[in-house]
Amino acid sequence: MDLKNLLDVLIEKNRSLISQGHVATYIPELAKVDPKLLGTAIVDKEGKVYSSGDSKVYFAIESISKTVVLALALLDNGEEEVFKHVHKEPSGDPFNSIKKLETEEDHLPRNPYINPGAIMMTSLIKGKDPDDKFNRILNFMKRISEDDTLTLGTETYLSEKRTGDINRALAYYMKGQGVFSENVEETLDVYFRQCSINVTVETLAKIAGFFARGGVLTTGERVISQRQAQIVTGLIATCGMYDQSGEFLDNIGFPGKSGVGGGILCPLPSKEIGVAVFGPAIDKEGNSTGGMGILKDLSDKLNYDMF
Amino acid sequence: MDLKNLLDVLIEKNRSLISQGHVATYIPELAKVDPKLLGTAIVDKEGKVYSSGDSKVYFAIESISKTVVLALALLDNGEEEVFKHVHKEPSGDPFNSIKKLETEEDHLPRNPYINPGAIMMTSLIKGKDPDDKFNRILNFMKRISEDDTLTLGTETYLSEKRTGDINRALAYYMKGQGVFSENVEETLDVYFRQCSINVTVETLAKIAGFFARGGVLTTGERVISQRQAQIVTGLIATCGMYDQSGEFLDNIGFPGKSGVGGGILCPLPSKEIGVAVFGPAIDKEGNSTGGMGILKDLSDKLNYDMF
Amino acid sequence: MDLKNLLDVLIEKNRSLISQGHVATYIPELAKVDPKLLGTAIVDKEGKVYSSGDSKVYFAIESISKTVVLALALLDNGEEEVFKHVHKEPSGDPFNSIKKLETEEDHLPRNPYINPGAIMMTSLIKGKDPDDKFNRILNFMKRISEDDTLTLGTETYLSEKRTGDINRALAYYMKGQGVFSENVEETLDVYFRQCSINVTVETLAKIAGFFARGGVLTTGERVISQRQAQIVTGLIATCGMYDQSGEFLDNIGFPGKSGVGGGILCPLPSKEIGVAVFGPAIDKEGNSTGGMGILKDLSDKLNYDMF
Amino acid sequence: MDLKNLLDVLIEKNRSLISQGHVATYIPELAKVDPKLLGTAIVDKEGKVYSSGDSKVYFAIESISKTVVLALALLDNGEEEVFKHVHKEPSGDPFNSIKKLETEEDHLPRNPYINPGAIMMTSLIKGKDPDDKFNRILNFMKRISEDDTLTLGTETYLSEKRTGDINRALAYYMKGQGVFSENVEETLDVYFRQCSINVTVETLAKIAGFFARGGVLTTGERVISQRQAQIVTGLIATCGMYDQSGEFLDNIGFPGKSGVGGGILCPLPSKEIGVAVFGPAIDKEGNSTGGMGILKDLSDKLNYDMF
Repeated sequence: MDLKNLLDVLIEKNRSLISQGHVATYIPELAKVDPKLLGTAIVDKEGKVYSSGDSKVYFAIESISKTVVLALALLDNGEEEVFKHVHKEPSGDPFNSIKKLETEEDHLPRNPYINPGAIMMTSLIKGKDPDDKFNRILNFMKRISEDDTLTLGTETYLSEKRTGDINRALAYYMKGQGVFSENVEETLDVYFRQCSINVTVETLAKIAGFFARGGVLTTGERVISQRQAQIVTGLIATCGMYDQSGEFLDNIGFPGKSGVGGGILCPLPSKEIGVAVFGPAIDKEGNSTGGMGILKDLSDKLNYDMF
Repeated sequence: MDLKNLLDVLIEKNRSLISQGHVATYIPELAKVDPKLLGTAIVDKEGKVYSSGDSKVYFAIESISKTVVLALALLDNGEEEVFKHVHKEPSGDPFNSIKKLETEEDHLPRNPYINPGAIMMTSLIKGKDPDDKFNRILNFMKRISEDDTLTLGTETYLSEKRTGDINRALAYYMKGQGVFSENVEETLDVYFRQCSINVTVETLAKIAGFFARGGVLTTGERVISQRQAQIVTGLIATCGMYDQSGEFLDNIGFPGKSGVGGGILCPLPSKEIGVAVFGPAIDKEGNSTGGMGILKDLSDKLNYDMF
Repeated sequence: MDLKNLLDVLIEKNRSLISQGHVATYIPELAKVDPKLLGTAIVDKEGKVYSSGDSKVYFAIESISKTVVLALALLDNGEEEVFKHVHKEPSGDPFNSIKKLETEEDHLPRNPYINPGAIMMTSLIKGKDPDDKFNRILNFMKRISEDDTLTLGTETYLSEKRTGDINRALAYYMKGQGVFSENVEETLDVYFRQCSINVTVETLAKIAGFFARGGVLTTGERVISQRQAQIVTGLIATCGMYDQSGEFLDNIGFPGKSGVGGGILCPLPSKEIGVAVFGPAIDKEGNSTGGMGILKDLSDKLNYDMF
Repeated sequence: MDLKNLLDVLIEKNRSLISQGHVATYIPELAKVDPKLLGTAIVDKEGKVYSSGDSKVYFAIESISKTVVLALALLDNGEEEVFKHVHKEPSGDPFNSIKKLETEEDHLPRNPYINPGAIMMTSLIKGKDPDDKFNRILNFMKRISEDDTLTLGTETYLSEKRTGDINRALAYYMKGQGVFSENVEETLDVYFRQCSINVTVETLAKIAGFFARGGVLTTGERVISQRQAQIVTGLIATCGMYDQSGEFLDNIGFPGKSGVGGGILCPLPSKEIGVAVFGPAIDKEGNSTGGMGILKDLSDKLNYDMF
């Protein structure tokens, strides 16, 4: 069975899991999405894209953008500078937890994928103003995904901005502790926009492939260093699913970074392939129910396990 | 020895403690204050004021304003409504700690005198806009202190506003958890102004006397109910000094509420007298070093202990 | 209406509250107690005892013993030594919480009435072995209550010992942090016994009276210093009801220390009287439902409020 | 350059790092070890052992035993049963932290490699008494390392037993919360013994090889299932170094489990090789300074990175 056929089979096999999840409702834009959608895509070592299901539907990238922004922050500032502002440790807490910012002696976020760490990374992106910074992020995402169709989802962005008070609290708390040097509202404006970029599941698979290949485009052009790609992917393994990261890595066998919009991005570094799923019906941990089923099956079929 | 003479003696006796403290420097306005200042005042049962030292010098009321705003919030909303928004328990944490807002199931502040609780109280003050709300607070403070000279310290207010990021974090966190219904920046604008009202140590003693007499002016006019005055004073006893409340109550023997500007307000309910001290040189817990010495001596001289 | 009549009336008035509570079941001995019991007692300034209801029934003193052991620890070691081992601050946490022993830099208990602090106090009692230490506690309790009938409830003690694993954890944690110098099992053996002393509600009222009179027997003989009595009573006010201390003090208006056996001891220092209630049907906070009703009524009738 | 030569070179190159560390002193037995020792070993895919430096010196396995006991607990009870008693998540806290046992709703340890989780795993080992349980662990360790020379270090065991109060606190706390069903002292007796087994760096490399090959001896005999080996190794990646796991995985590029005796065990699953280092001079995080240098160099030389 070839890869395309395999994906077709997995989509049908896991469609029944959709009813076990619900679309996110914390912002109105996400609540409007059709919960029945389900798609998946794989990018092989040579950059060839296979996909099945709702693979051309655009949805909000949400937290998956944190991986791309970490990569750009590393490119803009270098590894040494970036890790003066954030640690590389699993936090053991939910994505939006604030308590460790108080209890840890240095008041720095535990890793770049929990919200305070991600907001910190956004604050490190170079640019003369928020528009410039956001455009640099969008263009970088277009470049590494080799996908020119990415756009800002304006309604999602405005929803995020209206309801992002916990994120404001995280940023102001770091500011108040003297570890955040940028303007809070401007940084959050960029952050809310980066989360609202519309992608397809194919876009995500292509980004996953880029990281899995160690930072090289399908053209062979290097965009970030091998080391920078390893940082992004290694942190996905340990911190990509917040306080469910251990369970995910153990269950699926490869690293994954999910977004509340229903996407999950999975770089498979040892095989240099990128995998992604999309299904807006999510479980209480925030992961696509149908998508998790597909990833589990793929892991078995590919006989893939990092360990 | 009469009360005036006693205060004169205590001022001289405790002047040497000034050098053990330093003026607060977290906002520029406070750092400019002369550290050598020291004053004290007592208001007796009949409302007669005794004072000594720098008793006519104005300084920022800071956290002591929380007692007055709690009283007004009780008057505006009633006890039942107020305590839907805040608990009455010592927090065991510093004044600006955020972690219990996350870990307590209902996400409500533990008491009205830690910063999140105080900001919540400010949000309950009636008024059509921030100016109106602040003016109601200022007028209420003038009324219960029977002191018409109170004004806003504009420079202090602007300093507080510029540097109040931890307070922003506290308010946005409550907002994000759905337990804070007012506009954050507007509420903080009122909060920063209430903290910046200029008072003298005599003003504080008069406010303390008002609470100690159970909410009655020296004219005999009742402003708040006996029960409301008890709430304000009882919470000063258990929560007035944050995570030093037990130590203070044990050491001094009566309740006290301090401000980072160097004032301490002490209602002595069983004697119906009000005591206050002022000394901008504060120790690392934020309490006036000279002032604490005076209070300790006063407690001994008055043979006063609640227990 | 004289005091005896008042107590009779209050017992009848509050009997209906019994059905809102349940007897503690965490150890078998407590679960066997008749939930319908209700009693109260007052000791006036001269030491005269008034009581009503089930005032001659013996029950386990439980946590109320912590006040007596603190007094003896102060007598044995002096104030300075005692407070090298424990703080005087409300913890903001439940009675058996362990987390602050880890997170506070000095790993010391926050106050002598939460379990780790109480176990620490027991470890400070002088004596050549556990039997000697316990006998010293029992004799001290007999002396200050002027009640020779107190005995150890052996079944309760054995129950406590069998089920006291959280207390073992607290003690071993302090030991492991290097702040607890005695043998853990021996100290807990004394602790479980002190909690299992059988008292009547009259005994409790007499102990309360002893503290309220500042450490003097009804014969006029001083047993502990005024200062030591103030420490015991002041800490009852701020820490006596754990994370419900603020609510209790505000609601009832005077300090109280409850035990899971259904007793509550209340010294009223400014009036030099001792009050106690007993009702084994307790609410989810662990306080006697009928007893709380009686205390609230008494507070109103005596027109008593500390603030 | 062949593997043996490579190891010889790395030992000499990293010997200078020894002086940056110190031997552990928390138990007397560890403090007696010669800090100058340094050794390393690799077991290749076929089971051939290469080693250099002090590769025949015995030392206490300490926390590295947790991986072996997890494997035996899985074999004794099955995956489903084991993970009713422990989670698979990084804790974000130090190895002996107790606070999450209180704050997490189910009071279960976050993973099998922090101390409470490891003690829980020991409690799941089958056996009629502590001696039987320990012998089953020792024999299992001998079998998977194909090393018959392993023995109990009696002095280390007695030292651990004398000083293990934090571990007692962890176990009693779980017992008190009703999630630990075995006898605490008996379980800890087994736990202290498993930590005190004497191994060489070659033993560790052979255990690492066993896990890396997916649970198969060099003879081809399967001892645990592939899935069980994956669980052990996957958890080493995310939780092996406690709150330094992310930093280690990022820095070294493969999973590692260290012990305070100076050993580090590293299974490299995708290459099916086992690596180990030993150097009792450890840094403040508890990792061998010379050993870390060797691992970093090995990672570069083998061009190995999981991501």
